Amino acid sequence: MIKEQFEGYKYIEGGVCAAVGFTANGLNCGINPVKEKNDLGMVYSEVPCNTAAVYTRNKVKGAPIIVTKNHLAKSGGVSRAVIVNSKNANTCNANGEDIAEKTSELVAKELGIKPEEVIVASTGVIGMPIFIEPFKNHMKELVSGLSKEGNTDAVKAIMTTDTVQKEVAVEFEVEGKTCHLGGMAKGSGMIHPDMATTLNFITTDVAVSVEMLQKALSDIVKVTYNCLSIDGDTSTNDMVSVMANGLAGNSLITSEGAQYEIFKKALYIVMLNMTKMLAADGEGASKFLECTCTGAPDFDFAAAVAKSVIHSPLVKCAMFGGDANCGRILCAIGYAPVDVDVKKISVTLASAVGEVLVYKDGASLQFSEEDAAKILAEDEIYINISLEQGQASAKAWGCDLTYDYVKINGDYRS
Amino acid sequence: MIKEQFEGYKYIEGGVCAAVGFTANGLNCGINPVKEKNDLGMVYSEVPCNTAAVYTRNKVKGAPIIVTKNHLAKSGGVSRAVIVNSKNANTCNANGEDIAEKTSELVAKELGIKPEEVIVASTGVIGMPIFIEPFKNHMKELVSGLSKEGNTDAVKAIMTTDTVQKEVAVEFEVEGKTCHLGGMAKGSGMIHPDMATTLNFITTDVAVSVEMLQKALSDIVKVTYNCLSIDGDTSTNDMVSVMANGLAGNSLITSEGAQYEIFKKALYIVMLNMTKMLAADGEGASKFLECTCTGAPDFDFAAAVAKSVIHSPLVKCAMFGGDANCGRILCAIGYAPVDVDVKKISVTLASAVGEVLVYKDGASLQFSEEDAAKILAEDEIYINISLEQGQASAKAWGCDLTYDYVKINGDYRS
Repeated sequence: MIKEQFEGYKYIEGGVCAAVGFTANGLNCGINPVKEKNDLGMVYSEVPCNTAAVYTRNKVKGAPIIVTKNHLAKSGGVSRAVIVNSKNANTCNANGEDIAEKTSELVAKELGIKPEEVIVASTGVIGMPIFIEPFKNHMKELVSGLSKEGNTDAVKAIMTTDTVQKEVAVEFEVEGKTCHLGGMAKGSGMIHPDMATTLNFITTDVAVSVEMLQKALSDIVKVTYNCLSIDGDTSTNDMVSVMANGLAGNSLITSEGAQYEIFKKALYIVMLNMTKMLAADGEGASKFLECTCTGAPDFDFAAAVAKSVIHSPLVKCAMFGGDANCGRILCAIGYAPVDVDVKKISVTLASAVGEVLVYKDGASLQFSEEDAAKILAEDEIYINISLEQGQASAKAWGCDLTYDYVKINGDYRS
Repeated sequence: MIKEQFEGYKYIEGGVCAAVGFTANGLNCGINPVKEKNDLGMVYSEVPCNTAAVYTRNKVKGAPIIVTKNHLAKSGGVSRAVIVNSKNANTCNANGEDIAEKTSELVAKELGIKPEEVIVASTGVIGMPIFIEPFKNHMKELVSGLSKEGNTDAVKAIMTTDTVQKEVAVEFEVEGKTCHLGGMAKGSGMIHPDMATTLNFITTDVAVSVEMLQKALSDIVKVTYNCLSIDGDTSTNDMVSVMANGLAGNSLITSEGAQYEIFKKALYIVMLNMTKMLAADGEGASKFLECTCTGAPDFDFAAAVAKSVIHSPLVKCAMFGGDANCGRILCAIGYAPVDVDVKKISVTLASAVGEVLVYKDGASLQFSEEDAAKILAEDEIYINISLEQGQASAKAWGCDLTYDYVKINGDYRS
């Protein structure tokens, strides 16, 4: 996927280590001895970070979600490190919070920081017993291996069914100071964020207050991760955190204004790219889907329509099959929880090779099936809906529904 | 699937023709010349019928839905015939209402009834041009072939991706008079009813007022069809109608009481069985799923939990794979839109060969994977959830998500 360019922001390498003062590492600590891949990752800042986070709204929450919330409340929104494991979600375990706390203590002791400065996260199988020993036995090695190049090992440690590493970072200027903001994400299935996303860790060297960091994060989650749906299953362990260590040397951003907007846009660019990477790597996906709804009375209205279409299993199957079945798109628009005026809707299907108007003014159009098939044969498909009911717009992202989604999830635990 | 027995009610053959005074027919009128199957069906009552109906809440509605609503409003809830076609949903067509009206007029003329006494319905591809000629050219043949054995041809005419014919009828007594109530349904995909179902036509010879008929239907839809989800896509053409011609000779039921309850239970039995048949024949289904939620504060609470689990693609895939992944069930419970107390939940998986408790008091249990695999290898799976938050319960029905669902819907139109 070609990254959209934004003036004043340059894409750079480094992921969570792109910002000054951050190091990372990842290794296989043997949480599931059968699986060879990295399962334990760490991100560390050499100085304390103002920190914001959003969490899943699923009422069944992973133990690490509860522990991280408590930590940030206790520390006043200050953190120094992330510890994250894959292969086990540490959810629905009787001793889950105890394990998450003990893990934080191990991290704190090894790094010489406070346990409440640790963000702890887990992803993997829900309801599988979890033990402290793998964490204990590898903490020294994990910490001693922290480095500026460690982002690659760290991102490997958070992958589950992901097929690609998801990292993005940008460089930009605030008050003439060079700043960096980057992150890593994991996620492939069980994605239908509700005020959060799959696991996502972002770091920056911008100096920004906890309050403004939280405001920027909450605003941007709404237009990025919350408009992403792979399968409609809101995970128990969703979390996104942003750590800001201030080492770029700009004056602390404490209110809205030009500096805040520059910072917020960097956060938007990284989270937008991450959202698209998550959509394109949805479990079993063969096609990336972007649905744009324009002409709505307000953003929420537009987002409801775009998300309804992106979420429809029938639309997703039709896109997999390259079938320009506009009836399925109209059906999904029709059950979106907003008052669409069905007589005014128009729908266009587009890709890199062209576009075709399939529906206008409340009725299907006759179009060249041959042209439509060519357009839908591409691996990035754009569904554009115009409502003619206002000026607002929204985008939603997802992927097609394929045999491989079923295969991956028919026997996830083994 | 073995039908549940209810005292005082006997299952009989005949579907929509089981009740006295009803005949039916079905044939291939050539709506899509490429497809050989029946595509036009009719149900006829020799005397006028009190009639109730519920319709999809999708804002993009098939033209027949709009026309049928108008007809029943005009006739004061009296109908004589159903005309229904498959292969084309007559939805999103500029001339859709005109076609549905003209079809009703053809039916009325041939049967010697009023156009507003005709219930018109369509199912099939959305947004495909539709023409009056196939209806016109076959109306005489359709009417002249009406018979007591015509239910079989009629049910074939409403099938789309259905793999089995769905008919149920029962015999029972009201005031010592022998009564009958039966119906036919179609549906396989695009099923997530919202105040209605897929197409479903029910007939009875009980004498019951329009008001009480509508009340019974609306109440029972809530605990049957509205607790059914195949894929979460609410169809544009969902409709269920009940025609009551009174030929059983009981005194007209005009209020609640013993006679009303007997009639209502008959309607419940037929709709319950139809719901289960629809679930078992979900597109690509290899397993029937029933989720029972007990211990809820009220029915809506229980139904929200049961439906959330039945609807989860990850639960559906796990059941396809025979994977006792209780984490996926807990995840779906957790995002149901009600306040579950996660510390009190218990979950049992059951089938004809046994049951296994997989979750209790907020934590996963260790269980025999071998036993669980045997239980989940059956083709009817029961997921039982206890909330311990009250006395109410609800059931929801669905099926697993398989490769075949993707295959069927990857190229539905061809």
